[in-house]
Amino acid sequence: MNAGVVVPRYALSMQNVDLRLDAGWIIPIDPVGALAGHALIVDGGRVTAIVSTAEADAGFAARTRIELPSHVLLPGLVNAHTHAAMNLFRGIADDAPLQAWLEQHIWPREAQFVGPDFVYDGARLAAAEMVKGGITCCNDMYFFADASARAFLETGMRAMLGLPVLDFPTPYAADADGYLQRGLAVRDTLKHEPRLTFALAPHAPYTVGDPAWEKTVVYARQLDLPIQTHLAETADEVARSRARSGLTPLGRLHRLGATGPNFIAIHAVHLDADDIELLATHGGHVIHCPASNMKLGSGIAPVGALLARGINVGLGTDGAASNNRLDLFGEMRLAALLAKVATGDPAVLPARAALHAATLGGARALGLDHLIGSLVPGKQADVVAVDFGGVDAVPCYDPVSHLVYATGREAVTDVWVAGKRILADRILTMVDEGAIIARARLWQERLR
Amino acid sequence: MNAGVVVPRYALSMQNVDLRLDAGWIIPIDPVGALAGHALIVDGGRVTAIVSTAEADAGFAARTRIELPSHVLLPGLVNAHTHAAMNLFRGIADDAPLQAWLEQHIWPREAQFVGPDFVYDGARLAAAEMVKGGITCCNDMYFFADASARAFLETGMRAMLGLPVLDFPTPYAADADGYLQRGLAVRDTLKHEPRLTFALAPHAPYTVGDPAWEKTVVYARQLDLPIQTHLAETADEVARSRARSGLTPLGRLHRLGATGPNFIAIHAVHLDADDIELLATHGGHVIHCPASNMKLGSGIAPVGALLARGINVGLGTDGAASNNRLDLFGEMRLAALLAKVATGDPAVLPARAALHAATLGGARALGLDHLIGSLVPGKQADVVAVDFGGVDAVPCYDPVSHLVYATGREAVTDVWVAGKRILADRILTMVDEGAIIARARLWQERLR
Repeated sequence: MNAGVVVPRYALSMQNVDLRLDAGWIIPIDPVGALAGHALIVDGGRVTAIVSTAEADAGFAARTRIELPSHVLLPGLVNAHTHAAMNLFRGIADDAPLQAWLEQHIWPREAQFVGPDFVYDGARLAAAEMVKGGITCCNDMYFFADASARAFLETGMRAMLGLPVLDFPTPYAADADGYLQRGLAVRDTLKHEPRLTFALAPHAPYTVGDPAWEKTVVYARQLDLPIQTHLAETADEVARSRARSGLTPLGRLHRLGATGPNFIAIHAVHLDADDIELLATHGGHVIHCPASNMKLGSGIAPVGALLARGINVGLGTDGAASNNRLDLFGEMRLAALLAKVATGDPAVLPARAALHAATLGGARALGLDHLIGSLVPGKQADVVAVDFGGVDAVPCYDPVSHLVYATGREAVTDVWVAGKRILADRILTMVDEGAIIARARLWQERLR
Repeated sequence: MNAGVVVPRYALSMQNVDLRLDAGWIIPIDPVGALAGHALIVDGGRVTAIVSTAEADAGFAARTRIELPSHVLLPGLVNAHTHAAMNLFRGIADDAPLQAWLEQHIWPREAQFVGPDFVYDGARLAAAEMVKGGITCCNDMYFFADASARAFLETGMRAMLGLPVLDFPTPYAADADGYLQRGLAVRDTLKHEPRLTFALAPHAPYTVGDPAWEKTVVYARQLDLPIQTHLAETADEVARSRARSGLTPLGRLHRLGATGPNFIAIHAVHLDADDIELLATHGGHVIHCPASNMKLGSGIAPVGALLARGINVGLGTDGAASNNRLDLFGEMRLAALLAKVATGDPAVLPARAALHAATLGGARALGLDHLIGSLVPGKQADVVAVDFGGVDAVPCYDPVSHLVYATGREAVTDVWVAGKRILADRILTMVDEGAIIARARLWQERLR
């Protein structure tokens, strides 16, 4: 780690800063270990330094100082794949086979109800849930991204907006050109918002044909936008792709020019050795969504093998319709447990690898690792405080493994984004939680 | 469900009862569905009735009435396998291979530190964690069971004490006879406690030889005690058993007379078709511990196949050293997700089957289903209230699936055992949580 500003003890003048957080432990991620007896110094929305308490006393005069002696501070978690608005569908058809779930429950309701109001209310609910669980940035993929964007901005979090592309009509657009134009118009309107970024998001290889993929690739290059897509989620998808084109889904996208360091493969459950080599060679990223892959019976992504080959992995919750918690603590734990049982090796995907995926791995996948994902001087002060003082968190021998295996999102008490406290003692400071819940209950009556 | 006492609306006299709980939903388990607009009536520590609000108004005068309009009431969860005192080892050596974990980390510390004080302090910590997470009864297996028993009784919960049997010496006993004598002495002292029951608990087929198993079987028959053991946890255990005796671990125990309707097989990960048939024919029970089996890389128990064959299944957390949460909500969710991904079928182990295993299935395995496991008139009033009012729990289309997939133990607000409120608004009423945490931190310094 860059140790930050070094302040000599004999400093004649103290540096005035906005915020000093003294915590039981600080986990900067880079490096991943836990620092005891340190303080995090924040100014102008950025991390200024992580220094010992004595160095903090000697060098910094903070306008606000908060002591969190039983807490761990870590960078805000990055939920690298979700469909936020689908929080309004949470639990609407659990335990159903995938096709029945989509065709009988989700798609008919989307066709009937999805519009800007639905998306705004659903994304507000999701954003509230995510922030209370320590997620400060999400990578969203849904229709009416301007409505989701408004929800994320109001709640105080960051988001990458995945601008959807499909070949078939929905209430949002008629064809691939229509989706691209609507999405790019959203980007034009919102591209100056410092907490938003954008990606082109063709839904999946099997729902988007070659012409639309080719257009997407052209726009992505011209505008320097990442491309993200659901990829190789089921064995059936891979089999159909091979039957139709002779290629795996990833092989086909590579032929169409979509792969590269700006390519984000979501799910990536069923990859063959060539697929893995292709991702490794071309710098693509994988977003692992273990709960969704388990709940839908899709399979187990080869995360250990991906990491061993040097492929960057982030973690995602997927949407609440197929999870049903936007809980990245849960995904960290599940990713670690699932990798161990899949390989029979309890040393695979250790806690620090899971925590890395949930923070810096996700940030890197989104092209945001220069700004977020670790607590390093100069990066944005996106910080989460997790209380280790409860009966479920003592004793504590290793704060990193505790974050993954022992505690959960319920232990998150405070969240800052760009130095602004958007969760204070478990209360959202920017939005009215009661109003969000009331809107969700109204939608429940309509959707039932 | 037995609908309970039917009170005519023109009743001239009201029945005086101890407690009336009005909740948003009540899930009696038997049947498993959710009743809206009902009240749970409790008197003398038992369930008197579950009736509509109007019937409750007409028929019952309650000395205490509590309204929980955003809550679900369900029977207390049964953690059907744990080593409570091992909470003091929580997270001491995560991500380590199984043998290194046991031989380098757990066993040396057990040899040095385990005694009545360790067990009492560890079990108090575990009991506090369990009750706060909605667990009202656990099946414990550890040395110095009298010390654990004291912790469970003080916290207000129920427990089955698994009296350990081993062939090798520990600070607790020198040989199998010693273990049996110590265990039975604990039972003699405590057998009149209404919230305690007892089982003989040979550690595993591979750590206990035929003579000690035979003695255990004799005592179990004479005293009408269940036998519980870790069984077929790893593929290696099964291979060694076959190599030595020509039998699977279960086949060997059957030959020794240990099987039957009082037999509790913990883990049961690696069962062959004959094993499953044997359990089904002889009425044995399986305790599924998905988090532990995943974290140690042991494998995936064939839960769907067991249930399909009519074998009763309970859920357990195992000890905090290998989990690291005594969280039965987490185990329910994990059991459902794991069964789906193992079979590729999202309809396997639906939410109601997971909830059944965590309540009535566990109670039945412990031989306690005449007392607990469902909210039925005449059974003990062991009740948990779960708040569905948070941003992570709305909307709600199906309270049963919500309990398993959406909410978690953090939503538990109140717990009653035999009608006594042992958790009130998230605060333990019988014990001092601060003192429990302070003792755990002292042990942390010694054990580190």
